[in-house]
Amino acid sequence: MRLIAMVLGCVLAANGMAQQALWGGNDIVSPQVNDDRTVTFRLYAPNAERVEVEGDFLSPVTASTPVGETESPGKAVMTKNKDGVWEYTTSPLASELYSYTFLADGLRMTDPSNVYQLRDVASISNIFIVGGQPGDIYSVQDVPHGNLAKVWYPSPTMNMTRRMTVYTPAGYEDSERSYPVLYLLHGAGGDENSWSELGRAAQIMDNLIAQGKAEPMIVVMTNGNASRQAAPGEAPNSMSKPALFVPGMMDGSFEKAFADVMDYVEKHYRTLDDKAHRAIAGLSMGGFHAMQISALYPDRFDYVGLFSAAIHSNNKSDVYSGFERNLARQFCEPPLLYWIGIGRSDFLYKDNTAYREKLDGLGYRYEYTETEGGHIWRNWRIYLTAFAQRLFSPNRH
Amino acid sequence: MRLIAMVLGCVLAANGMAQQALWGGNDIVSPQVNDDRTVTFRLYAPNAERVEVEGDFLSPVTASTPVGETESPGKAVMTKNKDGVWEYTTSPLASELYSYTFLADGLRMTDPSNVYQLRDVASISNIFIVGGQPGDIYSVQDVPHGNLAKVWYPSPTMNMTRRMTVYTPAGYEDSERSYPVLYLLHGAGGDENSWSELGRAAQIMDNLIAQGKAEPMIVVMTNGNASRQAAPGEAPNSMSKPALFVPGMMDGSFEKAFADVMDYVEKHYRTLDDKAHRAIAGLSMGGFHAMQISALYPDRFDYVGLFSAAIHSNNKSDVYSGFERNLARQFCEPPLLYWIGIGRSDFLYKDNTAYREKLDGLGYRYEYTETEGGHIWRNWRIYLTAFAQRLFSPNRH
Repeated sequence: MRLIAMVLGCVLAANGMAQQALWGGNDIVSPQVNDDRTVTFRLYAPNAERVEVEGDFLSPVTASTPVGETESPGKAVMTKNKDGVWEYTTSPLASELYSYTFLADGLRMTDPSNVYQLRDVASISNIFIVGGQPGDIYSVQDVPHGNLAKVWYPSPTMNMTRRMTVYTPAGYEDSERSYPVLYLLHGAGGDENSWSELGRAAQIMDNLIAQGKAEPMIVVMTNGNASRQAAPGEAPNSMSKPALFVPGMMDGSFEKAFADVMDYVEKHYRTLDDKAHRAIAGLSMGGFHAMQISALYPDRFDYVGLFSAAIHSNNKSDVYSGFERNLARQFCEPPLLYWIGIGRSDFLYKDNTAYREKLDGLGYRYEYTETEGGHIWRNWRIYLTAFAQRLFSPNRH
Repeated sequence: MRLIAMVLGCVLAANGMAQQALWGGNDIVSPQVNDDRTVTFRLYAPNAERVEVEGDFLSPVTASTPVGETESPGKAVMTKNKDGVWEYTTSPLASELYSYTFLADGLRMTDPSNVYQLRDVASISNIFIVGGQPGDIYSVQDVPHGNLAKVWYPSPTMNMTRRMTVYTPAGYEDSERSYPVLYLLHGAGGDENSWSELGRAAQIMDNLIAQGKAEPMIVVMTNGNASRQAAPGEAPNSMSKPALFVPGMMDGSFEKAFADVMDYVEKHYRTLDDKAHRAIAGLSMGGFHAMQISALYPDRFDYVGLFSAAIHSNNKSDVYSGFERNLARQFCEPPLLYWIGIGRSDFLYKDNTAYREKLDGLGYRYEYTETEGGHIWRNWRIYLTAFAQRLFSPNRH
């Protein structure tokens, strides 16, 4: 590295570059995933009195976690070495995508040695992946990759242009065939970037498709805040702090405007435009949206996924007041797969139990998956991985 | 906000959500761009002894900066109020996109109240924009937006698939017309994300096109590290610390493999495939690439932009040893615009002066723009804004 730097330093310039804006970073390696699956964190902070690492790998959720109890990441105190570098090494970790931050004398900060970060609503954390399963599914592998586009589309219903993320599978650009579509919806505080960033949707789809475990499909990731054009920073005058709650959330307008999304996608992409080739799934608020939309357009979706879904809205929208009737219509000719997944300690667990009892009472068939943990992205990545493998092929369901 | 939160809190769930993963952030507003164009920074750090803000707005580069002198952002000491919040307010700032970090007792950290961040090589800084000119050009405005796609393409020359970013202008998806193409290349330490993120290329193009100041065009932003498939984190096994120097940089292979890029783009997009409708520009190493590529393919580009270009490589590639001959061939039928821009304190200033003298000696026409400051993104955004307005229309040059 020193040699390369010297040679190229000569190539580019004899002087000055080192002090100019191109340089960055430091010599600390953090995090370091070790061969024994332990992970070492390091922070150079010679003046700090106490440094902690806070991460979701420090509080493994166990089956004994009482239902409804909240989760928060655990903390570990780091140790300062003689060079002023604080270190902490975990016990061996199960394969997963983990997130963490540091606390230096109580001040929360991201790891300056790790540029891999994700924003969740208004918080930014560092991430790392421990390989194996499911970590490898969330990682970029040496397989054909789909493309990911940020697409502006007109929404006549909302009288605005809006932004969505569209994944087209590897091969799409060089084929003439038409593809099925999965509409994948985010939760409160999220946006059209959430599934591709926090949810690793492109990596999951690339890897499942490459392994023959999922059909090649287009994945459309909308912005579920119908009053907003786009993610924070991507719409005019939107570079303020992202909020969990957005005006107009869950008031029926996103569901009504969803026809605009389908119209645009089916006009601009090579799609298979029948019920057997459309799926819709969402997490939390997006699960609620998927539940409502699949009922509001009862002949459109053969595959429905409710991931840790919100079940109720207090809003008096005619969409929601018509839900019972819409649901009945949807199940006249029932979807091939109505998939419900939730974590045992999710605060929406009881609501989901009640919803399943209602479906049971009506004789509507669904599949149910229960996992450890709460209302967290770890579960939503697991659910997407499971759900995507069930779509669009007779031998998958 | 409290009312909305209460109402929607009821909507989504009666319990627990507040403590689960959906929440994030704090109540501090930072940065706050005030009406008088001053900017206030805030950090809640009750235990800190000293907090500073370091940013590029604190060391305005003046005409008196000696040529070759390096720039580093200035620092200002913040003041702690009784609530443990450190504050600093700048003097009124000129319109610009600025970046900054905090130093808490010497420990560098990003602003936890500002999710808008950019990575430059291995460093992450917060950003904010002060409106006016040029800040408004760098901001998302209420104008039609182009789409931005991450596209994988085959590079037979490099025997791998590689990733690029493609901007298609507003209207592309709903027209049948063909468009001119600008190939826009990054510098050392950069990748296919640099121009759309640090360079605000999509915002600049959206705004210039909407104002009628630039022709609608496709902008192709490649990865100029020919040995790499994609940006750090986007290729297999690449989640390590991004480096300024990458094996195989400026060894002639990117220039040779550039035919693969043009082949893919012209096959997969509706492009105007003649010299009059192709432009190539790049910054630093990318300026060197633009210089070499436009000469290596002498009949392809009527518009060439060298932004703070590197001029020399020590590599013995036949591409580089053939440059004089290639350049002569390129200027047999000279490009309509050969545009050179550099900052007065750039460490490559002298090399660019020598290159201009060489062009002068050969009688090759070019245009030259000199700005304040050094080898920094502020200048590259300015150069893109200027260059893009000169492209693809007889009345623009």
